[in-house]
Amino acid sequence: MEKELILVTGAAGFIGGAVARKLISLGYEIITIDNLSTGYRENIPDGINFIEGNVYDKEVIEKLSQFKFHAIMHIAGQSSGEISFDDPVYDLQTNTQSTLLLLQFARENGCKKFIYASTMSVYGMQPEGPVSENAIAIPQSFYAVGKLASEQYMRINSVSDLSCIALRLFNVYGPGQNMENMRQGMISIYMGQAFKNGHIQVKGDKNRYRDMIYIDDVCNAFLAALKYEFSGFDNFNVCTNVKTTVDEVVTAIHKLFSKPITIKYEGSTAGDIFGIFGDNKKLTEKMGWRPETNFQDGLKKMFEWINSQKNDN
Amino acid sequence: MEKELILVTGAAGFIGGAVARKLISLGYEIITIDNLSTGYRENIPDGINFIEGNVYDKEVIEKLSQFKFHAIMHIAGQSSGEISFDDPVYDLQTNTQSTLLLLQFARENGCKKFIYASTMSVYGMQPEGPVSENAIAIPQSFYAVGKLASEQYMRINSVSDLSCIALRLFNVYGPGQNMENMRQGMISIYMGQAFKNGHIQVKGDKNRYRDMIYIDDVCNAFLAALKYEFSGFDNFNVCTNVKTTVDEVVTAIHKLFSKPITIKYEGSTAGDIFGIFGDNKKLTEKMGWRPETNFQDGLKKMFEWINSQKNDN
Repeated sequence: MEKELILVTGAAGFIGGAVARKLISLGYEIITIDNLSTGYRENIPDGINFIEGNVYDKEVIEKLSQFKFHAIMHIAGQSSGEISFDDPVYDLQTNTQSTLLLLQFARENGCKKFIYASTMSVYGMQPEGPVSENAIAIPQSFYAVGKLASEQYMRINSVSDLSCIALRLFNVYGPGQNMENMRQGMISIYMGQAFKNGHIQVKGDKNRYRDMIYIDDVCNAFLAALKYEFSGFDNFNVCTNVKTTVDEVVTAIHKLFSKPITIKYEGSTAGDIFGIFGDNKKLTEKMGWRPETNFQDGLKKMFEWINSQKNDN
Repeated sequence: MEKELILVTGAAGFIGGAVARKLISLGYEIITIDNLSTGYRENIPDGINFIEGNVYDKEVIEKLSQFKFHAIMHIAGQSSGEISFDDPVYDLQTNTQSTLLLLQFARENGCKKFIYASTMSVYGMQPEGPVSENAIAIPQSFYAVGKLASEQYMRINSVSDLSCIALRLFNVYGPGQNMENMRQGMISIYMGQAFKNGHIQVKGDKNRYRDMIYIDDVCNAFLAALKYEFSGFDNFNVCTNVKTTVDEVVTAIHKLFSKPITIKYEGSTAGDIFGIFGDNKKLTEKMGWRPETNFQDGLKKMFEWINSQKNDN
């Protein structure tokens, strides 16, 4: 039997790469588009058809027309609220214009399922959580505005045969995360600093909190969305329902090291939200998905992965 | 005394041209950017510094850096929900990317006031009106998504010295409206058909309704926003609080003609909203603005203008 073909944009990145690997292991065939702006060519799983280019360029999307897709998972994009302030136009192109083009392509291609890597950032400031999908979104960064607009494009497009699912990812962490980018990913930033300098510099308050979701659980959410039968548009939090403070994160990292780690709190981050954690009831009830890795275990696996990487070099 | 300089984007268009003319009559100096994609060079008021180009091109915006602006009124853009489905990427660029670039420019320029032509379309389907600014926006067209994203960019940007006001324009009509574009502007479409063919073809139900706001009242809203002292971001409906059905519109047009006009209802329009009319309390209370022209009078003025144009040719 011929393998089902899935477009996973951004497979050179942390989440796209992990999702692609998971799909390959389950027997799917994968094509990816990636501009390697923050991802790495080495991160692209073997056996993937790789198209290098911007996912917001019509010419790049046109290269896909020779294929017939079972599903599209749009994961490529600029993924930092902070960085969206540096070049807002690039952020809009890569996160929003890309979605428009891919939705148009999906319809023309007769593709039936479109899954989008959205973000908890769309919520902005919210009263004490857990935050459900019914909360009114008040985005606080250009990044979040563009992600929310993409969701709205999906809702409008879903009147056709194309079923659209937005997964609102909370703070994703785990093996494979980019350890070089010191402006993206709370866990990778702190962990990276601890490894490199034995010192963690926290930009912002230690009582800030997040909902930390392990990469394997995120991959499982993409899989669940792929198998979920429904028509129209819907969005789902991908989170643990657990509030983890910056202080708890830093303390947990500290404990993993045998050497002493110093910690300093200073400054703040543009577009940062004080605290948010999510309600995952919709995803668990509708798709039977459940997070399987708790924060301590996930952090330990990540720590071991970083160590193994170091030993490889 | 040196004249205060205002950037009015889109002065070759219906609303931009009218606002620019009004500002000139009050002694302001105007610069405009327009790509003449739907506007006309002849529509640009005399004495304006006209830069031809796309307001979403960085190179075009850079030409503004030699000037110091008292205010920016961003009115240029693709203005039809229906047409936004034809070329969604152009819609996003012209209505949203442009706003990002102009906001960035405004900050760098030390400009203190940014006024944006937003739209009632951001509301989407709403329960029976009048709809206030507190209603949760559920945009139903690509056009509306892009306009709402622009408002959110403004909200995020307004943390600085830049005060940002979004005017949510309802159905604007009046002298100067484009009578050639048969896909944009309910009044101009029906009026244009009646003049040309003695026949009005309505795409959709006759009980659909809108809030018809006369162009001079819209100009006065831009002026009121210019003079309104506040800091931060806010949005305001520009409307009459009066519900006018398609049937009433068509009947009123019919009455203006001495010759018989035939009418046919058929089909529908993509992204169309069944009915919406607005609540203008916020604008009247905060800025002292009030609509001054009722629908019958406004329509008559428009009719006379079209006749005078015909006689000129």
